[in-house]
Amino acid sequence: MAKPKIGIICGSKSDLPVLAKAEAQLKEFGIAYDLTVASAHRTPKQVEQYAKAAEKKYDLIIAAAGMAAALPGVIAAHTHLPVIGIPIHSPGLSGHDALFSIVQMPPGVPVATVAIDGAKNAAVLAAQILALKYPELADRLKNFKQGMAEA
Amino acid sequence: MAKPKIGIICGSKSDLPVLAKAEAQLKEFGIAYDLTVASAHRTPKQVEQYAKAAEKKYDLIIAAAGMAAALPGVIAAHTHLPVIGIPIHSPGLSGHDALFSIVQMPPGVPVATVAIDGAKNAAVLAAQILALKYPELADRLKNFKQGMAEA
Amino acid sequence: MAKPKIGIICGSKSDLPVLAKAEAQLKEFGIAYDLTVASAHRTPKQVEQYAKAAEKKYDLIIAAAGMAAALPGVIAAHTHLPVIGIPIHSPGLSGHDALFSIVQMPPGVPVATVAIDGAKNAAVLAAQILALKYPELADRLKNFKQGMAEA
Amino acid sequence: MAKPKIGIICGSKSDLPVLAKAEAQLKEFGIAYDLTVASAHRTPKQVEQYAKAAEKKYDLIIAAAGMAAALPGVIAAHTHLPVIGIPIHSPGLSGHDALFSIVQMPPGVPVATVAIDGAKNAAVLAAQILALKYPELADRLKNFKQGMAEA
Amino acid sequence: MAKPKIGIICGSKSDLPVLAKAEAQLKEFGIAYDLTVASAHRTPKQVEQYAKAAEKKYDLIIAAAGMAAALPGVIAAHTHLPVIGIPIHSPGLSGHDALFSIVQMPPGVPVATVAIDGAKNAAVLAAQILALKYPELADRLKNFKQGMAEA
Amino acid sequence: MAKPKIGIICGSKSDLPVLAKAEAQLKEFGIAYDLTVASAHRTPKQVEQYAKAAEKKYDLIIAAAGMAAALPGVIAAHTHLPVIGIPIHSPGLSGHDALFSIVQMPPGVPVATVAIDGAKNAAVLAAQILALKYPELADRLKNFKQGMAEA
Amino acid sequence: MAKPKIGIICGSKSDLPVLAKAEAQLKEFGIAYDLTVASAHRTPKQVEQYAKAAEKKYDLIIAAAGMAAALPGVIAAHTHLPVIGIPIHSPGLSGHDALFSIVQMPPGVPVATVAIDGAKNAAVLAAQILALKYPELADRLKNFKQGMAEA
Amino acid sequence: MAKPKIGIICGSKSDLPVLAKAEAQLKEFGIAYDLTVASAHRTPKQVEQYAKAAEKKYDLIIAAAGMAAALPGVIAAHTHLPVIGIPIHSPGLSGHDALFSIVQMPPGVPVATVAIDGAKNAAVLAAQILALKYPELADRLKNFKQGMAEA
Repeated sequence: MAKPKIGIICGSKSDLPVLAKAEAQLKEFGIAYDLTVASAHRTPKQVEQYAKAAEKKYDLIIAAAGMAAALPGVIAAHTHLPVIGIPIHSPGLSGHDALFSIVQMPPGVPVATVAIDGAKNAAVLAAQILALKYPELADRLKNFKQGMAEA
Repeated sequence: MAKPKIGIICGSKSDLPVLAKAEAQLKEFGIAYDLTVASAHRTPKQVEQYAKAAEKKYDLIIAAAGMAAALPGVIAAHTHLPVIGIPIHSPGLSGHDALFSIVQMPPGVPVATVAIDGAKNAAVLAAQILALKYPELADRLKNFKQGMAEA
Repeated sequence: MAKPKIGIICGSKSDLPVLAKAEAQLKEFGIAYDLTVASAHRTPKQVEQYAKAAEKKYDLIIAAAGMAAALPGVIAAHTHLPVIGIPIHSPGLSGHDALFSIVQMPPGVPVATVAIDGAKNAAVLAAQILALKYPELADRLKNFKQGMAEA
Repeated sequence: MAKPKIGIICGSKSDLPVLAKAEAQLKEFGIAYDLTVASAHRTPKQVEQYAKAAEKKYDLIIAAAGMAAALPGVIAAHTHLPVIGIPIHSPGLSGHDALFSIVQMPPGVPVATVAIDGAKNAAVLAAQILALKYPELADRLKNFKQGMAEA
Repeated sequence: MAKPKIGIICGSKSDLPVLAKAEAQLKEFGIAYDLTVASAHRTPKQVEQYAKAAEKKYDLIIAAAGMAAALPGVIAAHTHLPVIGIPIHSPGLSGHDALFSIVQMPPGVPVATVAIDGAKNAAVLAAQILALKYPELADRLKNFKQGMAEA
Repeated sequence: MAKPKIGIICGSKSDLPVLAKAEAQLKEFGIAYDLTVASAHRTPKQVEQYAKAAEKKYDLIIAAAGMAAALPGVIAAHTHLPVIGIPIHSPGLSGHDALFSIVQMPPGVPVATVAIDGAKNAAVLAAQILALKYPELADRLKNFKQGMAEA
Repeated sequence: MAKPKIGIICGSKSDLPVLAKAEAQLKEFGIAYDLTVASAHRTPKQVEQYAKAAEKKYDLIIAAAGMAAALPGVIAAHTHLPVIGIPIHSPGLSGHDALFSIVQMPPGVPVATVAIDGAKNAAVLAAQILALKYPELADRLKNFKQGMAEA
Repeated sequence: MAKPKIGIICGSKSDLPVLAKAEAQLKEFGIAYDLTVASAHRTPKQVEQYAKAAEKKYDLIIAAAGMAAALPGVIAAHTHLPVIGIPIHSPGLSGHDALFSIVQMPPGVPVATVAIDGAKNAAVLAAQILALKYPELADRLKNFKQGMAEA
């Protein structure tokens, strides 16, 4: 039986500590993922190949980037898979730049944007989306919601 | 065979013109939806009932609101379905308020946020998510992407 | 004779250090309160029950939250008691998100918003409001104002 | 038996159209008010006299101002009555200036701030506060909330 | 012969470290000043007396405040002396609040605003203004400008 | 006997309608002025000559500019006369750009900044400054303040 | 002898009116250009081909886009030619989104950003850059500067 | 044969650590530069002389400044050489001030703006521009791009 699989990609190695919360949450949900560092600006060919191959490898993509955070949108340009975008905080402009660069996508090419540094929520949103296809995730999400309510 | 079904909800009748672009796009994709006006602040009971019943009626929710736009987050609090949030522009603060109120969700309860007044993209994102469960949507999305490229 | 009683609620344990200033000020005014941690997004049922029961237990509510700070507005949706909202500062967006999420309430459901991290003022505003019903608080507020002037 | 009475004050005649919604709502609640135009910056003596006399005339004050909106805070400096502040939108800075000038009060002197141009909510908040002293207002507020839910 | 005299006033003791640069610069120019801590919101009577007495004691006023920084404007309301305003930085809103509260004065009552935490420039501007009346200051300012150019 | 004289300068002909309020107010105060259009960026030589000649012609300068509003600061760089800066509103960025470009001057070279489009206040501030040297202006300012209070 | 040639590209037909000022200015300088509409998000393949072919066809690229304005950065990712970026104003967020998306490029891949809607300056900057290779443009730029000074 | 030469200038010694990344990158490209500290506001004559002499000494200018960052624009006013502007971050306003002051140049006088503290990109952009005149730089840029892709 098919298993859910997520591609996580970020623009810079410096984004990895933020992404750790997404990884932990995906593991808790039992969702497989792999993690790639590639930049829409510095390694565009790699990003394009990643995005074009995504349909065969992943159910959806989580993409994180800071500053002029083009990565999530560029991946969304090349695939019809859902793309979840995580704006990464940086000191100049306090994260306004990454947030606006990711959320303000033009008509036709959405990115599902979560909070600044909101890596955990990227994983939860991913599980919510995947639960449409993998019903066992719906139960895990209900338990997760229950767990939050009891915590 | 099951058919995709979306619940669209907005906080005020004044949001309906913005949502018309979501409706048109969903129709183009052949995705059924119904449309509800209810406010997290003025009709909270109705919103709660809507959210709790959502799991049985819908595959996902699109929620639009302006100003202190709590509606998408409140619905996300009551369901594990994916919730797509559309911040509605208003003159004071130029939409910053609705955007921040929708996207900056706390850990555990994400809202998949699209651009300010980004109703068309809410529909496209919905189709991308539903395509995981309804494979015929993947083809329509590929055609849609192809159509954009040729336009 | 009836005594004033306030319900303080915040969205996260991490908000408690900010609220300590509200607690200290309420104690100085001799106003009873209890303190609850509950989240409009993670524990919505608890928040709803809290808000619905508030009328019988409290004279007014002080609600603090950060980021997409829906808590004060959601409580205001369920009660006609005055709700005082405290936006909590967080590094991304420097508190703009919590402020806008709390103050920009739609017509019909106000939240009396104080400054970012303005917990002491939430307590003073509470005392000012309660003084309408409990006249001895008016004298304490005059002394408090006098004390500020002399400090 | 005492009746509720509110003082509404604004910094400029140009603010009056915004305040009309507060007036209409207070009339609907059956709350008496009078309306004064005075400026913390242009007519400070008048504002000070207004604020000092407020305790004998009013139960609370609603103060509206735009730009460097000092009026609500200056009144709050001179009275222990609750002061509700309405930031007035102006084109430069889109209302950020009035909002920040009203809400960011220093410790000890709160202003209960509502949304930009949120005059209706100032009236609702006033009624919520006055209901502590005038119980018949609690019923009208419940009806008002009920009416919103049914609208 | 008359000597220049400046009144420096700030809203809180916590503003004093910022003002030290103004004091040092005034001393370098040989301009006398005295320093007062008083708050437009907490000690309004003291501020009013200060402002009304200013005409007989000072040539101009330097006023510093943070957050909803009403102090400079309130002093300007009570005197026709030039008032120089210094917005004080605070973490929430990164100083936007103090800047907007001081600079966005309504028609008729200006405050000569300098940069956030710009205490040195408040002193230089004061010297430039006073040089109209005390010509020896013009020479010191020319030397000061020369010194900057050579530094 | 010497008479007060002000130089008004703006960066573009499109700024002239905003400056009309400064002109009207200066005329009301009986203060002579001349008006120059020159740009720190397009006609820097003219601006430099203007600034260097200012000391012999004017008591102070009023400078207005929009966008990257360097004009007030560049004039301040070349003269020790007080320079009053008026940020001009433009649609992109709602005037934030001009305000920040004028008010955030580095240590040593202040610009006395007034509100966005605050031309009337530039004239009032000019009169307040000139009153130090021309005492008859102090009386006119007192009348002006009195007139505002009575209006 | 080689002639300068510029590629102008924008993300949407709605950007063309803004670009007209760039076209007029290039014509005035006698610089050839062609104009392409293509979107980094909707027609990424076309943009990539455009960028990869640019080196053989153009001396530099002018790229304009609004909202999450990825176009200039994506082109810069694929070519070592200088890329000049023009942020296009849109009502939501007043152009902050396009500006931040274009200017905040990560280390290694710059975009030479001009003002919001600054199409004329994009053309002037292009001429300044091309003058390094085509010396006759230096003379035209001197005349242009002279013309501005005389206008 | 001519060699590329860049003038780097910044407004304050405190900007030098940021500029170190530009220096390192220029060295890597083998581009000669010299480094000057001069302020548009404190040493305007020096800046003017620098800008007027630039045409004979440099191929282009890199100018960095913080706060009301007039330096890049003032240099651009005096030369037709390309001017690359680097906004320097400072705590008040998080760099918005420097960014807006540099990028929002009026029609006719562009500054090629890079990211806040984006010194490395200023050097890369400089190399891209100079490659039009010095073809060997094109090869180094291709290697540089290749190196980024492989890193």
